[in-house]
Amino acid sequence: MSSEPQLSTEFDRDTSVSEVSRTEDEAVFAADLAPGWQVGGGLNGGYLLATIGRALQQTVPKHPHPYSISAYYVGPGVAGEATISTRVVRLGGSSVTLAAELAQQGQRKITALATYGDHDTMPSEVRTTAQPPEMAPLEQCFPTSAAPEELRRIAPLMERMDLRLDPAYAGWAVGAPSGEGIIQGWFRLPEGRESDVLSLLLAVDALPPVTFDLGRPGWAPTVELTAHVRGLPAPGWLRVRHATRNVAGGMFEEDCEVWDSTDRLVAQARQLARLPRG
Amino acid sequence: MSSEPQLSTEFDRDTSVSEVSRTEDEAVFAADLAPGWQVGGGLNGGYLLATIGRALQQTVPKHPHPYSISAYYVGPGVAGEATISTRVVRLGGSSVTLAAELAQQGQRKITALATYGDHDTMPSEVRTTAQPPEMAPLEQCFPTSAAPEELRRIAPLMERMDLRLDPAYAGWAVGAPSGEGIIQGWFRLPEGRESDVLSLLLAVDALPPVTFDLGRPGWAPTVELTAHVRGLPAPGWLRVRHATRNVAGGMFEEDCEVWDSTDRLVAQARQLARLPRG
Repeated sequence: MSSEPQLSTEFDRDTSVSEVSRTEDEAVFAADLAPGWQVGGGLNGGYLLATIGRALQQTVPKHPHPYSISAYYVGPGVAGEATISTRVVRLGGSSVTLAAELAQQGQRKITALATYGDHDTMPSEVRTTAQPPEMAPLEQCFPTSAAPEELRRIAPLMERMDLRLDPAYAGWAVGAPSGEGIIQGWFRLPEGRESDVLSLLLAVDALPPVTFDLGRPGWAPTVELTAHVRGLPAPGWLRVRHATRNVAGGMFEEDCEVWDSTDRLVAQARQLARLPRG
Repeated sequence: MSSEPQLSTEFDRDTSVSEVSRTEDEAVFAADLAPGWQVGGGLNGGYLLATIGRALQQTVPKHPHPYSISAYYVGPGVAGEATISTRVVRLGGSSVTLAAELAQQGQRKITALATYGDHDTMPSEVRTTAQPPEMAPLEQCFPTSAAPEELRRIAPLMERMDLRLDPAYAGWAVGAPSGEGIIQGWFRLPEGRESDVLSLLLAVDALPPVTFDLGRPGWAPTVELTAHVRGLPAPGWLRVRHATRNVAGGMFEEDCEVWDSTDRLVAQARQLARLPRG
């Protein structure tokens, strides 16, 4: 029953978890969170979500795909040992709802709920009225690997993925944000590692906060993030778009769409985050 | 410290909870879920969310307002006794993250996470680029109180609120859905009961499912619903808009916006629901 993580790529190694104990309804996993996913005041939220997503997957291997996962970030994750506790809330016929908690040194960092199932067993009908984002061609986008060394030092996260930002919404990098509250780009993992449901959980929180495009650089701590995985991604590049439409009360929502190479909307996510200070 | 519910209106009576026990971090409340909120296969999800929201409010009265609440619906709520257990996950300076569970006769029905705080202490800046929905004037909309008696019998919920549906997206009621996947209308509680954060939790799941407007009537069970309360609603009518952009894999997302009488976007919610059968 145990589904071993593929350790062949950095993403898989860094999100791997090992089972420490298990009862009928609960499991505990150990993780060693990698420093390479640091950005701003802590480890990237998408990286942490993918790691939790893997622990949940290994808790219920017969239900390998998240349909929905909601994470509340209560403290910054840091590099080093972490414990992920999972618990089955309700086991249904075609899906299972679970709770998870990520803690470090006895401090809760993330508490989450999720429903997992098997996308391969779901109806194949797709009726999407949303349109893929208009985005500059890949070769016209800015690779984050070309970012200034200073930026890459405070955000080593950028070297963990191949991210090409659409220049239409990358003016903030040179002090000229568009003001529209949009950031989008092409995304894939390096090492030929194709997308799956776990890398989608990374993708929904991998781009810089949309507040950069509003002229408000700085760390925007996530309060809550819910991702709906709406299909299994096809091989190839993903297009990821973040947008905000409501900055209010010291917070903003960030809506995320992830489209695969076949123009399927494979993930939708929304987070509520605090505005950067200053 | 205890904040007693106002029992003057039906909504307040029906969502009232009474504290059964409390420790430093946990509390248990008893509720008597009212049959008037029935719709389709169970009690309305927004009604249940508002009841949980009240239990959380009474758990942390110094943090009276939900910023975000995420509910996973694992079984249909039914009229009668219910137990709501709440637990503080992390108490911060300006906000608190909690977990809640609603059970009936030992069966879990809803598991939820939430972050509560105090909107009155948050920055007052609002920068909303979203536009209020274009909606027919109130007097041109269809009051659900005028619905056929047969419909009102299977959905007594409709008599608990004053809901006026925009005719542009109400054609499904006469067999002519628009096909756009939108349902919207004017909303308020009766008895002069003005909106507050709890009635917003009702409002985000009070309208018929958008699948009606796609020509797919029937009950659409919610898998997950997250509501962000983005401001305290002003007195007067609310405008509520639901839309879906992605029907796929046997499920659909339903995005909800709630605008108050001052054109402020006071709540944003999204749910993942299963398509009606057949």
